[in-house]
Amino acid sequence: MSLKLYGYWRSSATYRVRIALNIKGLDYEYVPVHLVKEGGEQHQDAYSQLNPAHLVPTLVDEDRDIILNQSMAIIEYLDERYPQTPRLLPSHTLDRARVRTVALDLACDIQPLANLRVLNKLADDFAVDQEGKAAWARHWITLGFEALETRLKNTAGDYCFGFDVTLADVALVPQVYNALRFGVDMSKYPLIDKVYQNCSALTPFKLAAPENQPDAQ
Amino acid sequence: MSLKLYGYWRSSATYRVRIALNIKGLDYEYVPVHLVKEGGEQHQDAYSQLNPAHLVPTLVDEDRDIILNQSMAIIEYLDERYPQTPRLLPSHTLDRARVRTVALDLACDIQPLANLRVLNKLADDFAVDQEGKAAWARHWITLGFEALETRLKNTAGDYCFGFDVTLADVALVPQVYNALRFGVDMSKYPLIDKVYQNCSALTPFKLAAPENQPDAQ
Repeated sequence: MSLKLYGYWRSSATYRVRIALNIKGLDYEYVPVHLVKEGGEQHQDAYSQLNPAHLVPTLVDEDRDIILNQSMAIIEYLDERYPQTPRLLPSHTLDRARVRTVALDLACDIQPLANLRVLNKLADDFAVDQEGKAAWARHWITLGFEALETRLKNTAGDYCFGFDVTLADVALVPQVYNALRFGVDMSKYPLIDKVYQNCSALTPFKLAAPENQPDAQ
Repeated sequence: MSLKLYGYWRSSATYRVRIALNIKGLDYEYVPVHLVKEGGEQHQDAYSQLNPAHLVPTLVDEDRDIILNQSMAIIEYLDERYPQTPRLLPSHTLDRARVRTVALDLACDIQPLANLRVLNKLADDFAVDQEGKAAWARHWITLGFEALETRLKNTAGDYCFGFDVTLADVALVPQVYNALRFGVDMSKYPLIDKVYQNCSALTPFKLAAPENQPDAQ
């Protein structure tokens, strides 16, 4: 098997790439990188040589000697490299921009603010407790979801953009999974919730779910 | 003039789009949105109708009735829409992925963690003072720059990727500007600093600099 995905079951960014690989119908070997155990395996030499940012995921194509980081860059790469399978980016320039906007709302303005390393830093620097960390996460998630719910009013069908799964859905589902962990009330976001439910019923999303990974705890 | 850029002189994301518009040789009208005055103009109806996320920038193409948010989506749109001008994304799929990776290192994993709304939230929730906010910003910037300096060892020439300006440089320069504001010692990152100096000498970057904007204070 040529493709290897290094990641963590609960990492949103890894989850996105698992979904994309499944939609594109690509076989891959999943290599768990435990983000907590022994101070985090992502900081050990074996992994940091694959990603100097010490973040997951990394996609390795061993046959081609390719190492790629950053989930959104990896997914765009897969979509361009394997154009014969379902496309995650639409063909029209303007449609592509709109799909990327929603994906980046999630990948830039929500996820990075509420991930493990940031919550740990709040605890270390300002003695923020578990509930305080969850409140911090909910703040950024709900702020982002309010904007996203408004955007989806103009675009959503079964999925974020009409009736085809796109990069926007690939980014949305892991963020909703994360929101539910932190106790966000999804009834306030009926369009986001509808898209989440519709996507969750699809096999590529089901197979990519955190609880279905070998490193799930 | 058809293109209007709504933004703020010191916003990194706006700065990126100004650089890209200049490189692409596109005329545009700059419309300042003051992020601080009166609780922030980005929260007022006039602007939030352009961007429900209450964030800058927004690019409006009035002739075509197009409204776009998210700086990286806007820049990819401009690069695809105006392919006859200098390209910010390389033509080869793998090169594009590598350029996007560096751009996303900056746009996902550094900038969102140290911007105004996050620093304000730290002050509001945990009574973090000015020096504490600067230390938080420096933490994420230096963590990101250490990774980026390693990446650039394999790719940099005059710019992040060899001798042509790409999306990676467009994202890098505003982040270095920001790092300098927070007192990051750039002598630790000689490759990043070299790329920053080389870009800063180019007219499209000079014209886009925060201090050269009409709303600069």
